[in-house]
Amino acid sequence: MVSIAIDCMGGDHGPSVTVPAAISFAARESDVRMILVGGEAVLAAELARLGQSSNPRISIRAASEVVLMHDPPATALRNKRDSSMRVAIDLVKSGEADCAVSAGNTGALMAISRFVLKMLPGVERPAIASFLPTQRGRTVMLDLGANVNCRPEHLVQFAIMGSALVGAIDHNDRPSIGLLNIGEEEIKGNDVVKEAAEMLRASSLNFYGNVEGDDIYKGTTDLVVCDGFVGNVALKTSEGLAQMLAAYLREEFTRNPLSKLAALLALPVIKRFKHRVDHRRYNGASLLGLRGVVVKSHGSADAFGFEFAIQRASDEARNGLLDLISARLHAQPVDTAS
Amino acid sequence: MVSIAIDCMGGDHGPSVTVPAAISFAARESDVRMILVGGEAVLAAELARLGQSSNPRISIRAASEVVLMHDPPATALRNKRDSSMRVAIDLVKSGEADCAVSAGNTGALMAISRFVLKMLPGVERPAIASFLPTQRGRTVMLDLGANVNCRPEHLVQFAIMGSALVGAIDHNDRPSIGLLNIGEEEIKGNDVVKEAAEMLRASSLNFYGNVEGDDIYKGTTDLVVCDGFVGNVALKTSEGLAQMLAAYLREEFTRNPLSKLAALLALPVIKRFKHRVDHRRYNGASLLGLRGVVVKSHGSADAFGFEFAIQRASDEARNGLLDLISARLHAQPVDTAS
Repeated sequence: MVSIAIDCMGGDHGPSVTVPAAISFAARESDVRMILVGGEAVLAAELARLGQSSNPRISIRAASEVVLMHDPPATALRNKRDSSMRVAIDLVKSGEADCAVSAGNTGALMAISRFVLKMLPGVERPAIASFLPTQRGRTVMLDLGANVNCRPEHLVQFAIMGSALVGAIDHNDRPSIGLLNIGEEEIKGNDVVKEAAEMLRASSLNFYGNVEGDDIYKGTTDLVVCDGFVGNVALKTSEGLAQMLAAYLREEFTRNPLSKLAALLALPVIKRFKHRVDHRRYNGASLLGLRGVVVKSHGSADAFGFEFAIQRASDEARNGLLDLISARLHAQPVDTAS
Repeated sequence: MVSIAIDCMGGDHGPSVTVPAAISFAARESDVRMILVGGEAVLAAELARLGQSSNPRISIRAASEVVLMHDPPATALRNKRDSSMRVAIDLVKSGEADCAVSAGNTGALMAISRFVLKMLPGVERPAIASFLPTQRGRTVMLDLGANVNCRPEHLVQFAIMGSALVGAIDHNDRPSIGLLNIGEEEIKGNDVVKEAAEMLRASSLNFYGNVEGDDIYKGTTDLVVCDGFVGNVALKTSEGLAQMLAAYLREEFTRNPLSKLAALLALPVIKRFKHRVDHRRYNGASLLGLRGVVVKSHGSADAFGFEFAIQRASDEARNGLLDLISARLHAQPVDTAS
């Protein structure tokens, strides 16, 4: 039985998204227990509305405060000790829950998780990792924004933690690792990347070598490692491009009666295409390096997307991600003291 | 009359792309002169094949060597002094040409251009800038890979040079400037970006503030400034994503007879969509900061795309880009001595 703490108040939509997602996940998986964290009255009302008040595998844990999307992490950490986010992480710390999921403010979630759970031995910096679709399947990319100034050792640690994540979720024990770099001959990367490449080459990891931005979606490697600044920009740039292309496609298919007719006829095709590129199926970024499993959902996720984040957390807990990370760090210690 | 030197041997396709593009451009614009640089026999044959041997506005300048895509810049610079790339840049230096276009190796083109043309007074680092499509129109982004380790002053110079480019091409004299950054509250950017933001805020430039990756394609600002590592990754990531989405769309529209029929009926819609997102219409990256107009075409560009790069170079020369950059640098001097 996996117990999952859900920060039900986080994200753009709060309980109207998080509670239905939790219920749907519990209905789908028989050996999970959901702990819904947040305002007691609103969660009880939502459960009642959905006819789940007496579901023995769904319980409510009261939390009186909410971390807002623009709360500075320090404020969330110090002044909102009874926030739904904090209580959910506390449940992981106490062992009552095996993992936590939140769609709240990433900075606050990272700060609270670091403070409450602490880091795994040997990890200096936590990282944010996510799966992305590729032409060949999917790839894990990290860091996506937790660390803006990285030393080479940090990138190596990201490679180790990311490998463990691919191992836990995709059961690929020796994923190929690409180091995100740029292509021009003269200027092959900055000093940090160059040094990280040397360290990775000398390690026992399955290091493929440098990859460029277009390799991410080509699926050249199972894992793409970069610092959090670059990773965040790459991810958000992708979001922006996808939105633009979707908007263009919509505009063209609704331009006139003839194109609307074409859209109608092409509907099955468009639906399959949409399904394949549906970012909701990739929702759920893992906070790696902590002594606990924490998954961050996109703030704007709907119930369908939020359920994928719950699935990710559940899989990580069930498949022993933390032990995998620890074992790999132990097998491949990285000196971060320099 | 604008004289344009074309490195006809560069790129994946060489004269079979560059010569038809040059001819087409010369046919479209009456007051341009094309100087085709490269192997004399092959260029003469290509002109003859296309019935343009006696076009008075198209001439050939012999160059006996070719810079290969993987030649290290230093090799191209020192050992290939009669390369088509080098001769094209030499023509700009001597004043015989007003600008040069090449689809060759970016590192070599930058090294040769810096060596031959030198920098504009006050510019410490050249940058590579390109237009990108957005939901609102288009935006200029730089640097796209010339500089991987930037100081804040460099980013400010990029903002100045990029503003001049938008002024010269889009006749927008006060473009809004976004500084590419990441969104998390706790970790708003690295030190270089933070300091650059302060400098931009204190300047007389039209500084919008920080933007995130998704703002590029939203078209939030007319100009997006970043270091070359981040810019290169963002650009290549976009290319990879666009390729993946195009491949998915193609696969879905050819999956079975019914979807092929739908594709046929949706053809006008798909054509309009393709036209809007046709990256070839954005081909042509400007090497900014040099004492000469040099435009780099994508190596894989076809004649349609290469002609856009020629157009860009022609517009920059015609609209006095170098004077605009110099005037703006003079009005807004940046201390790069630190």
